[in-house]
Amino acid sequence: MIFSPLNDAHKNAFRSMVAPDRFSTGKSHLNLHAADQSFHAPRRPDAVIWPVDREEVSRILSYADAHRIPVTAWGAGTSMEGNPIPLFGGLVADFSRMNRILDIRGTDFQADVEPGVIYQDLNNQLRFKGLFFPPDPGARATIGGMIANNASGPHTIRYGSTRDCILRLTVVLAGGKVIRIGTRASKTSSGYDLLHLFIGSEGTLGLVVEATVRLSGLPEALSAAVAAFPTLESAGQAVREIIRAGLDPAALELMGPECIDLMNREHRLGLVGLPTIFMEFHGPSREHLETILALARELCREAGSTAFHSGLGREARDRIFRARHELGEMILRRHPGCRVRVVDIAVPASAYSEMIGCAQKEMHRSSLTGYIFSHAGDGNLHVNLVGPKGDDGVWARIDELAGRMVEQALLFGGTATGEHGVGIGKRGFMEAEHGPSLEWMRRVKALFDPKGILNPGKIFLV
Amino acid sequence: MIFSPLNDAHKNAFRSMVAPDRFSTGKSHLNLHAADQSFHAPRRPDAVIWPVDREEVSRILSYADAHRIPVTAWGAGTSMEGNPIPLFGGLVADFSRMNRILDIRGTDFQADVEPGVIYQDLNNQLRFKGLFFPPDPGARATIGGMIANNASGPHTIRYGSTRDCILRLTVVLAGGKVIRIGTRASKTSSGYDLLHLFIGSEGTLGLVVEATVRLSGLPEALSAAVAAFPTLESAGQAVREIIRAGLDPAALELMGPECIDLMNREHRLGLVGLPTIFMEFHGPSREHLETILALARELCREAGSTAFHSGLGREARDRIFRARHELGEMILRRHPGCRVRVVDIAVPASAYSEMIGCAQKEMHRSSLTGYIFSHAGDGNLHVNLVGPKGDDGVWARIDELAGRMVEQALLFGGTATGEHGVGIGKRGFMEAEHGPSLEWMRRVKALFDPKGILNPGKIFLV
Repeated sequence: MIFSPLNDAHKNAFRSMVAPDRFSTGKSHLNLHAADQSFHAPRRPDAVIWPVDREEVSRILSYADAHRIPVTAWGAGTSMEGNPIPLFGGLVADFSRMNRILDIRGTDFQADVEPGVIYQDLNNQLRFKGLFFPPDPGARATIGGMIANNASGPHTIRYGSTRDCILRLTVVLAGGKVIRIGTRASKTSSGYDLLHLFIGSEGTLGLVVEATVRLSGLPEALSAAVAAFPTLESAGQAVREIIRAGLDPAALELMGPECIDLMNREHRLGLVGLPTIFMEFHGPSREHLETILALARELCREAGSTAFHSGLGREARDRIFRARHELGEMILRRHPGCRVRVVDIAVPASAYSEMIGCAQKEMHRSSLTGYIFSHAGDGNLHVNLVGPKGDDGVWARIDELAGRMVEQALLFGGTATGEHGVGIGKRGFMEAEHGPSLEWMRRVKALFDPKGILNPGKIFLV
Repeated sequence: MIFSPLNDAHKNAFRSMVAPDRFSTGKSHLNLHAADQSFHAPRRPDAVIWPVDREEVSRILSYADAHRIPVTAWGAGTSMEGNPIPLFGGLVADFSRMNRILDIRGTDFQADVEPGVIYQDLNNQLRFKGLFFPPDPGARATIGGMIANNASGPHTIRYGSTRDCILRLTVVLAGGKVIRIGTRASKTSSGYDLLHLFIGSEGTLGLVVEATVRLSGLPEALSAAVAAFPTLESAGQAVREIIRAGLDPAALELMGPECIDLMNREHRLGLVGLPTIFMEFHGPSREHLETILALARELCREAGSTAFHSGLGREARDRIFRARHELGEMILRRHPGCRVRVVDIAVPASAYSEMIGCAQKEMHRSSLTGYIFSHAGDGNLHVNLVGPKGDDGVWARIDELAGRMVEQALLFGGTATGEHGVGIGKRGFMEAEHGPSLEWMRRVKALFDPKGILNPGKIFLV
């Protein structure tokens, strides 16, 4: 890929497109847009621009395309696979000032938002209308970033990933043209599904400037339960039986004992240090949830659970899930001076226990430290591998181990990334996962972005 | 589009690719592949071929591409918008002999099937494992055809459309190359979503030769209810409230009184001739459903229902839904010597009642006969317009009225087709619905099928 360096003429051109405080080449701004929350090496852009509307985005892309200048979209920088790191420098387009909630249509269970809206902020507004936007990656992510990575989280098992909660997008293409894809109808068979092509494309096909999101009704009743198991295998069995029985959990998270210890330490949860399932159920009434929880308890008992605490209300639930969401940070705090490589893989349900077993065995064999936790109901596994900063020997082993885990997931018919996206870290596995269809992905990229200016270096190995 | 006529050399070439009984130019075979279940004019292909494996499909497409011969895939011919009518003649590839269920992986909630499998046949096998494939268009459709049209049905409100129930596809592209897209993992953020690009593409981008479908667990308990309302508006309000309350119906169908009368006539259902909702709930236990039904009854009462019959078991439920699925045929039987044009549109929930009101008013004004029924929970409306065969005056008015309804749906932010696909009948509305993104759909078509041999004349106006 051959790009133009961002010279003074280019800088002046971009500067003239926006208000004076919305273009910067200042070092602190560049540093703030050099790294996400992943372990990948930072790379500074040459400039940062903060557009506020689609016309500005269109002008920026039109110019950048004509002059072959890389443009990488930036949401909140909370991604986990280097997705927004501007590998080839150039311009970062930071969408944080395009953060208006444009419309909430309660009757339609829809909202129109700009890409810079933080999903928790949208949910804070929606709460008063009895609605919420379900995907919950945890970090304070923007909806634009969630669309880029097809983000998901604990609630995905019931409510779907970001892909399932987007109805319509307005997208600015590489040359500056604006298209609208999708519909406000809740289902459609009208023409090619470009909508889902753009969702999860990590800002490499076009930049989203508006999204119509699908909302769900806040459940009338919520109840959570915690179950402990002697082994990860027996916990995995309980997960399968809960799904098979149609209990329709709103979350079904499995954590290894090392994670439970950490969560107890920081949040005094008082849980037993065993493989543990956090489950959450949503329903129209308390009585309804009681029948569900009774069935869940029975299924867990049959799978060998040693403890089952049910009937946790919203407050207890929130404490547990906050601890769950903070696991990544806790691991860092527990290991000062260390970095963490997060492995994000997903496998079919039947391979889930075996995949966890492989991961444990490999960690043990490598004498590496790792934490296993997972969106178990989706077969989506995270392994956070810890190593001292700068210890090249350990890091070589970590990288090798991470690679082996991904390869194992692919052998099980799974995917190299369940929710973090390809970014930088998973490019090397695309050939193995997709085979000949990878070439067609490249052709789709070339169709929509012939000069390759949009987030270059991502998804595909150069 | 310029295609080669199917000459003797071509016929011999295709004939040599398959067993002798699997290629035909016989008139009866050609006639059987000239029309689907829609009102669109028949058009015979020049030959029919029945491949049995991907290698044959690959050879057929490789030859057809090299010689610019149109190839239109054929499932069961049950589509409603002319989708498989071979508008440019050429070859029809009938997938009915590729109908093996290759694997059922109960623990994964997955099955691998060939495209010619009829979905009810799959469900008959799955029943013994406590599983089912949820999309239910009603007719004995093949899964390949359902993928082509992104088919859906009454259960879509809870379980999604075909798009939501496909995990992986093996596709033969126009030149004969075979690619596999998607994953067996239940979620993924790995690369571009080609999977959903092919689903709903009506055989214009490639031909599916194998699909991994996502299954659901058969519900432990099922209950149905019927509620009658004084007006379609009040029924529409009940629909919205049932969804908002999170009762998570497995079906939520609304029929006009003219449909109820017809269903009473043929099936002696003894229902009151009023706007009526059929609803179905799935759950893990009978007690659970009782609490749900009590809430549903309350919400219907608040919306003004005049009758509510609940607690219908599987047998009563099946009778009602069989009648519902047969509505199309009943309408034909009720009007001998007539044809029916089915309008299939979908609008956001807030516009649903108004859309029905518009449709009624327009039918009244045109003094045309029509039947309104809908997958109300999805805002998906069918209007079956009836006119005497050969009465050009009436048919001109029917076509005009159908067009006005589609335009109205688009004005409401809806879609020209909720589940029947674009086929022939909705091509003229693609520009209005998609605007500049239609051009990108054309480019995607040109990318995957540069010579345009796959189901030419569909989706796009020529």
